[in-house]
Order: sequence, then C-alpha cells, then structure tokens
Amino acid sequence: MFTCDFSKRGNLPLWEFLYTEIKNAVISGLFSPDEKMPSKRTLASHLGISVITVAAAYNQLISEGWLYSIERRGFFVTNIGESVPEKTFRASRAEKIPAAGKIPERPETGNTAQKEKWFADFRDNSTALEKFPFSQWSKIIRKILHMPDSKVLSRCETAGLKELREEISSYLLRFRNIKASPERIIICPGTEYAYGMLVQILGRERIYAVENPGYRKTADVLRINGAVCCPVDMDKEGIRPDIIEKLNVSVIHVSPLHHYPTGRVMPVKRRMELLSWSMKNDGEDDAAKDRWIIEDDYDSEFRFTGKPLETLQSLSESSGRNRVIYINTFSKTLAPSFRISYIVLPETLLEDFSEKAGFFACAVPNLDQMALAEFMKNRNFETHILRMKNYYRTTRNNLITAIESGKLADISHIKEEDAGLHFLLTLDTDISGEKLKGKLAEEGINAALLSDYFHGKESAADFPEAADKTLVINYSGISRERIPAAVKRMEKALTPVR
Amino acid sequence: MFTCDFSKRGNLPLWEFLYTEIKNAVISGLFSPDEKMPSKRTLASHLGISVITVAAAYNQLISEGWLYSIERRGFFVTNIGESVPEKTFRASRAEKIPAAGKIPERPETGNTAQKEKWFADFRDNSTALEKFPFSQWSKIIRKILHMPDSKVLSRCETAGLKELREEISSYLLRFRNIKASPERIIICPGTEYAYGMLVQILGRERIYAVENPGYRKTADVLRINGAVCCPVDMDKEGIRPDIIEKLNVSVIHVSPLHHYPTGRVMPVKRRMELLSWSMKNDGEDDAAKDRWIIEDDYDSEFRFTGKPLETLQSLSESSGRNRVIYINTFSKTLAPSFRISYIVLPETLLEDFSEKAGFFACAVPNLDQMALAEFMKNRNFETHILRMKNYYRTTRNNLITAIESGKLADISHIKEEDAGLHFLLTLDTDISGEKLKGKLAEEGINAALLSDYFHGKESAADFPEAADKTLVINYSGISRERIPAAVKRMEKALTPVR
Repeated sequence: MFTCDFSKRGNLPLWEFLYTEIKNAVISGLFSPDEKMPSKRTLASHLGISVITVAAAYNQLISEGWLYSIERRGFFVTNIGESVPEKTFRASRAEKIPAAGKIPERPETGNTAQKEKWFADFRDNSTALEKFPFSQWSKIIRKILHMPDSKVLSRCETAGLKELREEISSYLLRFRNIKASPERIIICPGTEYAYGMLVQILGRERIYAVENPGYRKTADVLRINGAVCCPVDMDKEGIRPDIIEKLNVSVIHVSPLHHYPTGRVMPVKRRMELLSWSMKNDGEDDAAKDRWIIEDDYDSEFRFTGKPLETLQSLSESSGRNRVIYINTFSKTLAPSFRISYIVLPETLLEDFSEKAGFFACAVPNLDQMALAEFMKNRNFETHILRMKNYYRTTRNNLITAIESGKLADISHIKEEDAGLHFLLTLDTDISGEKLKGKLAEEGINAALLSDYFHGKESAADFPEAADKTLVINYSGISRERIPAAVKRMEKALTPVR
Repeated sequence: MFTCDFSKRGNLPLWEFLYTEIKNAVISGLFSPDEKMPSKRTLASHLGISVITVAAAYNQLISEGWLYSIERRGFFVTNIGESVPEKTFRASRAEKIPAAGKIPERPETGNTAQKEKWFADFRDNSTALEKFPFSQWSKIIRKILHMPDSKVLSRCETAGLKELREEISSYLLRFRNIKASPERIIICPGTEYAYGMLVQILGRERIYAVENPGYRKTADVLRINGAVCCPVDMDKEGIRPDIIEKLNVSVIHVSPLHHYPTGRVMPVKRRMELLSWSMKNDGEDDAAKDRWIIEDDYDSEFRFTGKPLETLQSLSESSGRNRVIYINTFSKTLAPSFRISYIVLPETLLEDFSEKAGFFACAVPNLDQMALAEFMKNRNFETHILRMKNYYRTTRNNLITAIESGKLADISHIKEEDAGLHFLLTLDTDISGEKLKGKLAEEGINAALLSDYFHGKESAADFPEAADKTLVINYSGISRERIPAAVKRMEKALTPVR
C-alpha cells in the first residue's frame, strides 16, 4: 500500500503533504493506470493519520484530476499518459458538450452603463463595492503623491514599473506556485489589451483557438486585432486536441482551472495532452510554427475549498520547455474598473517581446501601478483577498440556500465547483431561450443563458444539460440584501411556466 | 480697402475680431489670390485702430497661412484654391525637404529607464516634476474615494466616463474651437493605444501614410497593429499630396499645427489640399475607399504667442463633411505617465466604432478618469496649463539665451515657431551624425538628430539644413538649474570641432 514519510513534510499541513506525495507518485508512474487506491479509511489507518486528512488530500487530487472516483466503487488513478475509458472517467460529473458550429455571433454587450435598470443583474461581473478598501487606498495614494522623489511622473518601462512586477512575482510564487522573475511579467491595462499585445508578439498569421462554449470577448478581441480565431468544441474534459490538430492551430486560449461559463476544471490528463501538443514543434527552425498555450487564470483566487489548483504554466515550466503564457487580472480581486492585468511570458518569448513591442509605453498610469505595488507589499492584498473570499462565500451560500429552500428547488438544479464567482442553474421547464430571459427581465432580473456562450446556436440546442435552459449566475456584483427578494422575483418569473 | 464693423465683435478682443473677419474674407473669396493687403499702418489708420492690433491679426493670419509676407514688399492673400508660386509663398521661411526613402529603420528607443545617466537629456519628453499639482491631485483622489456613492468601481463605457468626456468636450470648444459632443470623444490609455483603436475601426487593409520625417513611433504602432504604413515625404508645406495620391493611401496621419520634429506649421493652402483629398471619394458605396485624416494635435496647448491655430478638424467640420479624426493627449499637459489621451471621431464613424470596438472596456482606470474630470471641472486644468506655459516659456528663453550668449552662438542657429516643447539647433560643423552625438554623450548630454526622424538615411543626407547636424532639443524634461552647466557642456563638446 502507498506509504510516505511524514517526517519530511516540513511546514506543510499533513493533508497537503499527502496530496503532494500521491501526485508525485502518479506523475512518476508509481501507480498503474486506473489502479484502485485504498479507501480513505484504510489509508488513514495504514498511515496513522485521520480520515479527514486523507479525504482532504483525495478531494484535491480529484479536483485536479490526478485521481477519479466511481460511485460506490472507490478511487482510481488517472491514466495521464493515454486515453481513459469514457464511461469510467469522472463519471460522477460527466456531461457531454457536443460539436458546435464555427461561425460565432455577436458578442454579449455587457458593457453598457445600464445596470441601474435591473433589480438584480447576474451578468454583472463587478465586485462588491462596500468591501473595497477605500480609505487604505486613499492613504496609499496620498503617501505616494507626497513622497519627495515621487516616481509618479517618471518614465515607465514597456513592461510596467519594476516595483509592481516584483510584488506580482512574489505573489505568484507564494500563492500559485509560479516561478516567474519580474523580467517575465508585463503589466497591461486589462486582459483585452493583453490579448492584443500577445497577437502582436506571436503574430497574426497564426490560427488561434478558443474554447467553445466560452467567453466571447476573447474571440472578439483576437479577431479585431487581426488574428484568425477558431472556436473549438469542448468535450467533457475541455478543448478537443483532435480538432486543434486538424485546424492547424498554433495558439490555444484556455482557462483550465475554471472554465467560463461551464465552471469546469480541466483534468490532468487533458492538461498533459495540451502540453504535449504544445511541445510538438519544439526545435523547428520555423518560429511561426511554434505552439503556444495562453492560460487565462482569471478567477483562481476564488477557490473556496482546498488548495489552489496547479497551473498549466507551472506544469509546463517544470518540464523545462515552457510553452505556456500565463495571464491573470486584478479585475476580480480589486475591481474591473482598475484596469490592471498581467502576462507572464516564457523566457523564450522575451526577446520577441522587446523587439516587437518594446517601443510601447506601458499603458497603465504610474500612480495606479505604484498604489497597487504598495498595497501588495504590505500584505494588504492578501488580507483583502481573504476578506473578499469570505464575503463571496457567504453571498454564494445565501444565494444557493435561498434558491434551494424556495419554489425553485423542485424545478432547477445547481452546478458549481466550489470555485469562481459564478455557477450554473439549470431549469426544468418547457420554456427556453429568449422567452426565459424575457420573463426574468420582466421581474427586473438580468441573466445570460449557457447557450449565449456558444459560438453557433445549433450546438447549444444539442447540449444535454439544456444550455438554453441553464442560467449563468454571476453573483459578485449582487447586493447581499437583495438576494431574498431577487430569488422571489425569479420564482415569480419561473414557477408558473411548468 | 478691407473694412469691418467692430460693433459686431461682441466679447472678442479687437485683434481677434479683425483676424476672424479677414480669415472669413479669404475663405469666401472676397480677395483675389495673391492680392496685396494694405500695410499694417494703412489698415490701422483706415479702421481707426492701433498698428499693434493689426500686427497681431496679421501675425496670426500668417502663422496659419491665410496671408503670406514677402520681405520689403508687404502682405499678400494666400491662394488657397490653387498652387501658389514656390518662390513667393512664405518665402521668408521657405526650406526644402527632399524626397526620402520608403524603408524605415528601427525606432528610437527612448523608453528605457536610463535617464539618470544623463546630465541633460534632450530626448526626454517628460514634464516638469516640480510643477505638478501633487497636493491638489491628492485631495481630489481623497474626495473621490470618500464619496458615498463613488463610481470608482462601477462599470465604464467603452468610450470612457461621461463626466470626463463632457469636460473634454467643453475644453475643446473653449480652447480649440472644436465642436465635439461627448458622444464623439473616446478616452484611451495613451496615443499609442489610440492609433491601435483607429486601425481596428478603419481596418488594416488600408494604406496609412505618415509624415517623413516624423515621429517614428506612429509608424511602428500602426505596423505592429497590422496596418500597411508608408512614410510619405514632406516638402516645405507638409506631407506631399501627389505622393499620397500615387500610393493609393486612404488614411493620413499628420500634425499640421506643429510638426515633429521640424516644428513647422502646415500652411492653409496645404491644409485645404489635404481636406479636398479627403473628400474625394465621398458618397462612394465602398466604405473601404473612404478617406480619413488623423490630426495629431499633441502639443497645441504650448503655443507661446497669439491665438491657438485652427485645427484641420474644425476646418473640415465647418465644411459639413468631416473627414478628420482628431487626437490629443494629456501627456504634455500633465505627464506622460498619466496615460490619458482621447480621440474625437467624426459623427459618421460612431457606428463603426460601436460595432467594431464597442465590446471593449475603456482601458483607463475609473479613478484616473474621475480625478482628471474633477481637475478640469474646477478650471484647475486651465490654470495648470497657464502655469506650465509660463514655466516652459521661461525654460525655453533661458536655454536659448544661454546658447546665444555663449560660444555656440557663432557656430549654430536656432529654428523654432514660438510653439511646442522643442526646437531645432543646427550646427555649423564638419562633424556630423553619430560622431556628434558621441561627443555630446561624453559630456553627459543626450540629444537626437533631425536625421534620426527620417525613414531612410539617404534623404537626411540631402537635407539642406543638414539634418545630420541639426539637434532636436526637447526641453520640457530639463531641470532649469542645470541649463547653464548643460550649455557649457555642449560648448565643450562642440566648439573645438571646427
């Protein structure tokens, strides 16, 4: 039976040490593919630790896809090298997203200033106003503007102020296990700008793949920047490598740790497939054939249970041939209106960056960069994230409880992954699509359907979870006081429709 | 003789009313082309006003090119409809810039954070640190962050916050005679971003023309955004319409009111030629053939004498068929590190904008937009500009006096147009090019040559004013205390070279 030496765990909690040991054993091939793992109770008694500790480790391993569970049969080791039988793999939450058309439609236009007209806007991705550290921020800015040798007006490098890049570098190491020197970090005014910058660095002659369904803006921004962009269908594990290969794609945009809008986590097996795809043309003379993965880690800070999931970036980096470009943003942790995001470039792209984009000025004001650096330096940022995480957890719990304890309980079910700032609410109703949204709108409720995120309507119609009857519930911008009334309004709109 | 009714002048100063009346008379064809105007003294006594008033009006009309002067002969009306004989037109400051090659070289890389290494950096375009209203700004930000219903975190429209666009609209009307409703104004994080946005709106299948010589970044940014960009040679009046026509250009980027780096003002005749070029394809079905002029008014606030020059934009607007896209920035008036610029779109492009770029979030943080709006609202901005103008005027005077009263006086001459934050210093020396810069660098002086701004070296060699012996002196970032010592260092580097 699997054994490990707890004396080596250093400062790690027991469960995390156990998780790491099992993960490493899976990677190094110590287990056979699909090997049955000992039950939680058996392993606990074998190692002389509590069942809760083993459960925590197993849960994390399952979230990341290193293990899978089959109901009433137990836990199994994922075959990360080869294909896994469909019927067994993560069967408990298997679902099928069938092929989608390739022609995208107009993007959602969530960018208007009309939020006042809704009683509750579940398309709103803004952050909790009342939780923002206004007075802290104000003090920091005052301090910066009163510094005798303020750098506020001085020239800023293309990649952004060194102080901020250093803080991000240290944050990434501590919280995301990403080893990125400040030189590899580029500060941008928002993720949209970052996509444009990447098209400029990688070239617009390439084919870029995005996930279908997915966040439409990504495709729109890539296209308006002149790149060819293909929405590629997902299966239950994520974007499909077979289609990617067929389409001659050389750049993939994915959110493996929390896909939007389905909320799924890409299992390790698919992550490994993507990584091996990305390395296929390594060493070729033709740089345009280089393959790249853009990993968009947009809301990883809001994982409510367990350890943060491991990024593609760090998996790729540890292979020694990093082909993953990591992107993250402060839109979720501070506010979208702050317009600060960042790119972590692989070492090998630094020269291209400085050659192609090195003449740009960093487009984020110095003052904002300095304030954020100061905020991060004093660990204010970490405290803030913890506070926000607690706040959102409660908001989410309140919302889910209100739904499950009311009339909607019988005609809907919730799907979520203990992570991120949205979940899915599938309705058991005969009405669907625009009509459903219309009924909600009459009650002052704004919500998008899962089907809105498909490129090509026909695919949504095939979706077994009824994509045109599944609401995407973004709750970060919802006022907590309005939750009971908002759910009542949803009931009013939706319950008579059966 | 020309007469006007001063009772109609309202609140306008006498000279400005006279200027406007004569300008309108020229436009409406009341004068014959090349008609001789009365002398200042004659007109003054005819109208019963002072000679100084007439002189002020004539100076403004000459700066803008409505009149021209021939030494010892007097003032003449510009033929704005047709070609004007080369030998007479603005002969007093005529100079020739011959044809230049089409292949541009690497841009100047003034974007590194190495300014500390120079004793005086005349390539530095930063603004005077000590003049920035730090405590005012700090108070404004504090006020915004403490407002009970702060909009700091709320969603911002693609075009930017309405408050700021309203302030800019009213500023443009009062200071630049530009009638632009807030709906036509788009806030961007810097001019480079604005160029990218325009390529997205107008399309990258077009040929974009930029001035040669010119600010290289413009061409670089257009190219990295995927547009075809041709540097088009200037003659003494500005970018050459004959080449534009030949190259099948459909978008021109110009700075008619203060060309960088030559400092020239485009005479009205050439402005009219460009405007009539822009309207040539009007009404065609093929929108891709529409012609557009991008007017970059980057430092118009710093005109030290007379009334601000009239923009191409307002000339075009008054024709009823506006084909001019106006761009300006707060980099010069506040600081480059503020990253706020704006575009004024013609009415007819608004639909394209919202269709093609309407899904973008405005990339300037709300806090910065709100602070600037507040700063403009209380007229703080206007006071600030006046203060900066005075400050820069003194800096410039100090620098020019130091040059003209020292050893450089005999071996150099200064060329400037009472405007903008740079001038040209042509050296009478046998040494040129890199060697000249090297000698200055040894003394801790950083300066660019006029020839650095040519796309294609051979053209610079032909330049009669010795482009490779002409320094471009940006003085906005120079500390005033260092001027005497900096000029001494320049003398040391340059005087023994004869």
